[in-house]
Amino acid sequence: MPAGPKHSRFILEGIMIKTIEWTEEGVMMIDQRHLPTEEQYPVFRTYEEVAWAIKAMVIRGAPAIGVAAAMGVALGSRNADASDADTFDSTMEQVFDTLAATRPTAVNLFWAIERMRSLYANLRRAGASIDDIRNELAAEARRMHAEDVAANQRMGRFGAELIPDGSTVLTHCNAGALATAGYGTALGVIRAAVESGKRVAVFADETRPFLQGARLTAWELQKDNIPVTLITDNMAGHFMKRGSIDCVVVGADRIASNGDVANKIGTYGVAVLAKENNIPFYVAAPISTLDMSIGGGDEIPIEERGEDEVTHVKGMQLAPSGIHIANPAFDVTPNRYVTAIITERGVARPDFRESLRNLANGGV
Amino acid sequence: MPAGPKHSRFILEGIMIKTIEWTEEGVMMIDQRHLPTEEQYPVFRTYEEVAWAIKAMVIRGAPAIGVAAAMGVALGSRNADASDADTFDSTMEQVFDTLAATRPTAVNLFWAIERMRSLYANLRRAGASIDDIRNELAAEARRMHAEDVAANQRMGRFGAELIPDGSTVLTHCNAGALATAGYGTALGVIRAAVESGKRVAVFADETRPFLQGARLTAWELQKDNIPVTLITDNMAGHFMKRGSIDCVVVGADRIASNGDVANKIGTYGVAVLAKENNIPFYVAAPISTLDMSIGGGDEIPIEERGEDEVTHVKGMQLAPSGIHIANPAFDVTPNRYVTAIITERGVARPDFRESLRNLANGGV
Repeated sequence: MPAGPKHSRFILEGIMIKTIEWTEEGVMMIDQRHLPTEEQYPVFRTYEEVAWAIKAMVIRGAPAIGVAAAMGVALGSRNADASDADTFDSTMEQVFDTLAATRPTAVNLFWAIERMRSLYANLRRAGASIDDIRNELAAEARRMHAEDVAANQRMGRFGAELIPDGSTVLTHCNAGALATAGYGTALGVIRAAVESGKRVAVFADETRPFLQGARLTAWELQKDNIPVTLITDNMAGHFMKRGSIDCVVVGADRIASNGDVANKIGTYGVAVLAKENNIPFYVAAPISTLDMSIGGGDEIPIEERGEDEVTHVKGMQLAPSGIHIANPAFDVTPNRYVTAIITERGVARPDFRESLRNLANGGV
Repeated sequence: MPAGPKHSRFILEGIMIKTIEWTEEGVMMIDQRHLPTEEQYPVFRTYEEVAWAIKAMVIRGAPAIGVAAAMGVALGSRNADASDADTFDSTMEQVFDTLAATRPTAVNLFWAIERMRSLYANLRRAGASIDDIRNELAAEARRMHAEDVAANQRMGRFGAELIPDGSTVLTHCNAGALATAGYGTALGVIRAAVESGKRVAVFADETRPFLQGARLTAWELQKDNIPVTLITDNMAGHFMKRGSIDCVVVGADRIASNGDVANKIGTYGVAVLAKENNIPFYVAAPISTLDMSIGGGDEIPIEERGEDEVTHVKGMQLAPSGIHIANPAFDVTPNRYVTAIITERGVARPDFRESLRNLANGGV
């Protein structure tokens, strides 16, 4: 990788976007609902507040909500009544269950809670003290935070090889530093390509209804001085047909063992249009996004969110009152549209059943 | 067609949506920028005001802007300095040119202006009086208004036969009463199907950036008690894949002689997704939308509109300042994705070169 100002700039900016952080007072998050016009960093002091923040999308993005849930568990243990072991156990069960009930689609949430639950069970079995349990859970959550950034950076290096110099990359939603503990999955691939000296420009779908592309991706890329063109979701096909897009890179919320990909609503449409126009379609996600327990995307639960996200923008009414609204937050892209899946352990290509099993079992 | 309350209701409501009307004071239009939250009916008293209204999208939709331009010409003749014939001629040239320069994609605009220009030339050649010219131009504009409604109703009857009872129809943008002199093209087909006794439900794409689907289509269908589900544009593929959509009907802004269709941005994506999911994709448009002078969609100029439509909604900023925005208002759907084109003279099917030529030459 070339050194020099370009390279340093990225490292600096990458650290400057603080998506989520463990502090003495609680879990600090940048409130993504108010970006890009306001940068607010509220601190969430209880596991219930963290659960609310995940549900309300103060924080979003599969890897980021995994880290948030882990920190929520640590907070829960810190505040839990530990007057006797049974009370502590039952409170912690409630902590795990409450955090698991926040959002249904991203599997990283359940993976993170399961990791915390299993550590808790081991510590209890080993007779650890309450203080040790609290400290260990907080340490584990912070470890997961650090591991996520490192995984993104490794993923970025694998993915960067797939991005030709001079490319224009289309991305959908936000799979950036804001969707992770830092650096990003899809945007991590783009960042790594730029850090390696390649010239890369980005088209960002605005991503209705929550506008993660317009509000978050455009903001992140602007901070990193990566050229970005913002379009509405329905323009992607037009620019693909015109030859303006060289490849697509998106994140994922859950990947089935056959390579079917659940991701932000609209991803399926982008994938179909990419295939129709012979444009490679890449998915970048950590191993924790793989759900090897399910055979295909049909088994992935799709979250249905509130009507207001569609009918209103920033409190302003767009549509007539009283009509029916649908608001599925995710869709499933069948594996036949996916060119490759980029993970921190390497790049999986079809047949995904085999290549993902290999990665899940330890990698390259 | 069955009579009864259902039928009467449609006729009544259809007349109640007054998109555009010639009045003694000038051209009255419903200001579509403020729907559905406000119903305002400003009157435009000069051709310059009408040109502004078309450009600013107070009125939009290919057939509606054709009628608006014709009425603008009539207004122009009424206000023009007619102290001598040469001055009148040169003022009228300016009227034609100004109105033709408002929007580039919809061919109905040029068709309507050409019809008015040719009538004007004939009247001048025949030595008609200034008063007669003014009256004839106003009468012609009102005739075009009435003809458009009648064409939509005929188109509706042809199209209704393609919509099976119990269907769910997806539409994009607004090709309804508000996009025409009344009744609508795509929504006219849906209205006619309902009037004929069929049960039809509609999925309406919200249609970013101008939100014609959320603001106009949902409002029109709600007025007519036709069940409508509003979705963001990027949800269309998800519902097609799930089997929720039986067919797609959209309007058009210009149709090339080979059947390539220019229509609101995002139409191409809808068409590709429909084909991928084996769903018929129908285009409903009057003969005046055909441009037999061009061989294919690549020759259709695509309007690029202002950045604010993408970055702001109702004056509220969504995206960071200073990023690059693209805002093509239309795209081109190649003929291979089009199942049939519904006109007031009958239904064209592939090979469109032949079937459209037959319709252009007079009909069924």
